[in-house]
Amino acid sequence: MARISESTVRRLSHYDRVLEEVQAEGKRLISSHRLAEREGVTSAQVRKDLSSFGSFGRRGLGYNVERLRAEIRALLGLDRRWRVAVIGSGNIGSALVAYRGFEKQGFDLVALFDRDPARVGQKLGGHVVREIRTLAASVREEAIDIGVIATPIQAAQEVADALVAAGVRGILNFAPRKLFVPEHVALRNVDMAIEFESLSFAITHGRARRGRAAT
Amino acid sequence: MARISESTVRRLSHYDRVLEEVQAEGKRLISSHRLAEREGVTSAQVRKDLSSFGSFGRRGLGYNVERLRAEIRALLGLDRRWRVAVIGSGNIGSALVAYRGFEKQGFDLVALFDRDPARVGQKLGGHVVREIRTLAASVREEAIDIGVIATPIQAAQEVADALVAAGVRGILNFAPRKLFVPEHVALRNVDMAIEFESLSFAITHGRARRGRAAT
Repeated sequence: MARISESTVRRLSHYDRVLEEVQAEGKRLISSHRLAEREGVTSAQVRKDLSSFGSFGRRGLGYNVERLRAEIRALLGLDRRWRVAVIGSGNIGSALVAYRGFEKQGFDLVALFDRDPARVGQKLGGHVVREIRTLAASVREEAIDIGVIATPIQAAQEVADALVAAGVRGILNFAPRKLFVPEHVALRNVDMAIEFESLSFAITHGRARRGRAAT
Repeated sequence: MARISESTVRRLSHYDRVLEEVQAEGKRLISSHRLAEREGVTSAQVRKDLSSFGSFGRRGLGYNVERLRAEIRALLGLDRRWRVAVIGSGNIGSALVAYRGFEKQGFDLVALFDRDPARVGQKLGGHVVREIRTLAASVREEAIDIGVIATPIQAAQEVADALVAAGVRGILNFAPRKLFVPEHVALRNVDMAIEFESLSFAITHGRARRGRAAT
């Protein structure tokens, strides 16, 4: 399999969403054209993306929805469940534990931590906020794979270090600063301004909807 | 100019971030290789992206940092300021108004709305929460370009309709449901699960860091 860029991974997630919709409609086959709509790519790009991991549609018929979805989800690592801890019970942490959509995609939010004594022990979205000092033990005993950093900027690197030391395999960082983690730990930074920029681009170029563009 | 896909727009935002870093380091020139690092694309992809809107580096020298950044920002619609209203003062709305990073990118959060009488009139991140019924008047009188939907799912379509009627040009939707807006209004949906999926892909394929992949 050829190596896959960040952009492609993101498109795979979007194809998964389209396939889910089409599956809910009870359809068995899907065209590359329909898969292309949501992300504003060409159907040629879709075919290229899918063929890169060995999935080929049949001319005039398209792709088998169920099979293609299973392949994409396996590729994204969504054929298993992931155990997630959120660190920081402020606005972002609260929004994350309240959101049910993660579970559907295979991400189980199993623990929520804070260091503020006023918050520790409080209940939030079905979770009791735990004391940050218990993080390492929790990660090990509860086999947590992914840590989400939803702390203030100043605490972010320290929390990242603690997560790495405790043995998580990946970190999702919401704090707007650059973090340093060893090579073997996956790190993704969430930059909300990028969502706004996609919108300002679309407004500027009169490209209101997704699904209009080519290339 | 060739039409530009969602993936490309996203990469442009990331190139802008790299250029900002390099500018802060005081460098005048940047290679396509350095620009490629953050998103895990090849330098050939960078050159293709940039040449698609007429920006060509000089062999052996690279790109002029300042000029390239100005071009990318103009293309993204970031050579002007955008006026943004947030609807919903719950966790997501609160996180958004607390985050200073938007202003730096040109997005001014000028108003925050809610319909909960317990919240209206309260101060949040320097904003007094306004009554949702004043939305249309505010959008018109304060020339608001973009509305951000941070409401519960059930209210999202109604708020979108109100924003469209009031004349916004774009909507950023955090509610996990499909919204319907007319063709002339830009709509982007934020799907936080996709950030987790980028991470599960990286962990699954042992591709810990951004900047490792090709294609």
